[in-house]
Amino acid sequence: MIRADTVIDSRWVITVDESDTVLENHSIVVVADRIKDILPTPEASRKYNATEHVVLGGHALMPGLVNAHTHASMSLFRGVAEDLPLQPWLEQHIWPLEGKWVNREFIRDGALLAFAEAIMGGTTCMNDMYFFADEVGEVAEQSNMRVSLGMIALEFPTIWASSPDEYLDKGMALYHRFKDSDLVTTMLAPHAPYTVSNATFEKILKIADAYKLGIHMHVHETVQEVTDSLNQYGVRPIRRMKDLGLINQYLLAVHATQLLDEEIEMLAEAGSSIAHCPKSNLKLASGICPVSDLLARNVNVAIGTDGAASNNSLNMLEETRFAALLAKGCSGNSASVSVNEAIRMATINGARCLGIAHEAGSLEVGKLADITAMDLDVLQSQPLFSPTAQILHAATRNQVTDVWIGGNRVLNSGTLTTIDNSECLALAVKWQSRISNDN
Amino acid sequence: MIRADTVIDSRWVITVDESDTVLENHSIVVVADRIKDILPTPEASRKYNATEHVVLGGHALMPGLVNAHTHASMSLFRGVAEDLPLQPWLEQHIWPLEGKWVNREFIRDGALLAFAEAIMGGTTCMNDMYFFADEVGEVAEQSNMRVSLGMIALEFPTIWASSPDEYLDKGMALYHRFKDSDLVTTMLAPHAPYTVSNATFEKILKIADAYKLGIHMHVHETVQEVTDSLNQYGVRPIRRMKDLGLINQYLLAVHATQLLDEEIEMLAEAGSSIAHCPKSNLKLASGICPVSDLLARNVNVAIGTDGAASNNSLNMLEETRFAALLAKGCSGNSASVSVNEAIRMATINGARCLGIAHEAGSLEVGKLADITAMDLDVLQSQPLFSPTAQILHAATRNQVTDVWIGGNRVLNSGTLTTIDNSECLALAVKWQSRISNDN
Repeated sequence: MIRADTVIDSRWVITVDESDTVLENHSIVVVADRIKDILPTPEASRKYNATEHVVLGGHALMPGLVNAHTHASMSLFRGVAEDLPLQPWLEQHIWPLEGKWVNREFIRDGALLAFAEAIMGGTTCMNDMYFFADEVGEVAEQSNMRVSLGMIALEFPTIWASSPDEYLDKGMALYHRFKDSDLVTTMLAPHAPYTVSNATFEKILKIADAYKLGIHMHVHETVQEVTDSLNQYGVRPIRRMKDLGLINQYLLAVHATQLLDEEIEMLAEAGSSIAHCPKSNLKLASGICPVSDLLARNVNVAIGTDGAASNNSLNMLEETRFAALLAKGCSGNSASVSVNEAIRMATINGARCLGIAHEAGSLEVGKLADITAMDLDVLQSQPLFSPTAQILHAATRNQVTDVWIGGNRVLNSGTLTTIDNSECLALAVKWQSRISNDN
Repeated sequence: MIRADTVIDSRWVITVDESDTVLENHSIVVVADRIKDILPTPEASRKYNATEHVVLGGHALMPGLVNAHTHASMSLFRGVAEDLPLQPWLEQHIWPLEGKWVNREFIRDGALLAFAEAIMGGTTCMNDMYFFADEVGEVAEQSNMRVSLGMIALEFPTIWASSPDEYLDKGMALYHRFKDSDLVTTMLAPHAPYTVSNATFEKILKIADAYKLGIHMHVHETVQEVTDSLNQYGVRPIRRMKDLGLINQYLLAVHATQLLDEEIEMLAEAGSSIAHCPKSNLKLASGICPVSDLLARNVNVAIGTDGAASNNSLNMLEETRFAALLAKGCSGNSASVSVNEAIRMATINGARCLGIAHEAGSLEVGKLADITAMDLDVLQSQPLFSPTAQILHAATRNQVTDVWIGGNRVLNSGTLTTIDNSECLALAVKWQSRISNDN
């Protein structure tokens, strides 16, 4: 018998390997933070002696969901302003609220709330972009959450930094602080073409090249952004980015609701990625990302929830359902974003755009044990002709019972193990009270 | 002290009355099947002596959700065929499966599964259209589920009837069988313009007039349907229906993804209703109902899940979220389908199109006690600046803890009381096994 830390027996294992293999009655063997083996359950019981043996007879195991774009701490602004378009929502509500409330305490509490919600919904990795990312990284390490932190950059001063150079300096400090972390990676995160100058972009590009860092940026979120760029620069933002050398393999372009065919081609040729945030884009009436066209050109499209302030949740399962159904409906092609494609978008494609696809995003031997277990033995998921179709189209996040991140069981039979649920709820109530009483 | 059957104390009561009143720290008093009183909790405790006193301190009470279009028993075909457009999905999968499997046992088992899922998700009334509706009505009465049964009509023979006249005769028998029921109502249900002849429509219209019955029909689901009608009749289906006198106050037009301005005007002038099924329409790539335009002309728009075969769930909360977000995104107006409008669509608008708005669809004194309680004291719904916004945009169906239908507590702290959950699950598994082994 070979010693293992954890053996998980499951009715199905949705591997999201290159062939989208779905295994039946298999077990995943975890040693330390890695998947050591995936094999039929009877063989596993003969071969491995596990410290913890978890039997999930009616469940599917799948790679933990990867949220490719969020502002975690904005969870504390969940539902604070409704039924508004992006600019008034930002300018009249979110920015004033941020000016008044965002500080290190807010960021820590908001990140904890976000991680709790994410884990309970099967998410094991989040790509964050917000202030005080060092706090977010610390909370992630304490919560055993996997995150990618944005080294944000803006042209104007905020509570985090007062000049583009200070943003970049603080970003580099963030990089160095977490570069040996098992859970935290970093990406350059210029906010958007309309808030960052060419000079700053040139510096960012040099850093990306030198450190092999991804660039996480809002791009073509609204028509307004494109129109403003035409007025200010004479070209659309993607053209401007292309001329600056920023349409490249490091780029993760978020939203991308306004894309010409030639822009899709530019992104495809460059090997850039897209973070599609369907609920936020619909809710703010920003536009709809042409996912079917992007996938047809083999662009890597991942899925993000955006912040809970414009969503109002961090429910990746629901977000992926929106992505699949919206793509079918908008393209007029019901085969667009098939079940397997949607599941890839929510897992391996997300890992790819964060530069961690060699480590996460699928259940394969040697990869990190980032695993989500979903109970399909409930009447809402029965009859069950296909576990993947039922997960994509019928399951709800409460069916997530167990989650492992790097082999650590952060959700155990529905209970968070690294975050105190009641304490987290109390933090949210504390902030609601403060904000409501002074808003 | 006045005697009452049930007093429910709640943090919020979302009444969906004419002013969309949301009450705080109020109680709903139920006597027999009706709401007798709604008043501040301290007053309720002085005034009423209840057989059952339910304290829901972190919950919102809202009217039970009304599913305006479904095929309940098709839940047994949940996820049986994926990534297909309507016609191949129907012709190559659903119709052959129906021919092979649909019988009285299938209908009873499927209806029970559907009612169980619906109740657990906060739905208290479903508008059904399928074969052997008498069985569905019986299961509804046994389960204490409120349903509207479709008196279906088609030009071609099925297991239910062999001629249009036989369909109508069986429909009238259904009407008479349930006309005194507390839970079951009936609507005429010609399948669609493309499956029913003018002669049959003329008979249906006479019955509607004589018995004051609603007419529940698929209308303009796809482009194909409109094109075929132009070829066969020289006019679009709604024009043909208008000429037949069927665009009237009795009509509940389902889907309506293809609407010209003049057709919206016809529906508005006639006082017809629409059952919008966003997920099914997206999934089958049928098109997108122009909900914003319909609401702008004051057309009564309700929400339906369609059958679970094309959804793949009966999750009205999620369906309503799709309706709100899709309307915002497709109209380019983030104020379209506001929080209150969306909640009305899922409740009172549904009741209106079933002809029961005087009895259900809102929490008001004298109405039936069809009540859904949702726990908002969970971290996924916090902070909570607006209970209605959080329900529409952030809550998931597992937060529904209690449901009353006609004063009967059919869901008690998450447990079904009129349906045996395990038995229901076993029925689904039985049918899956039969269908999988012979498909």
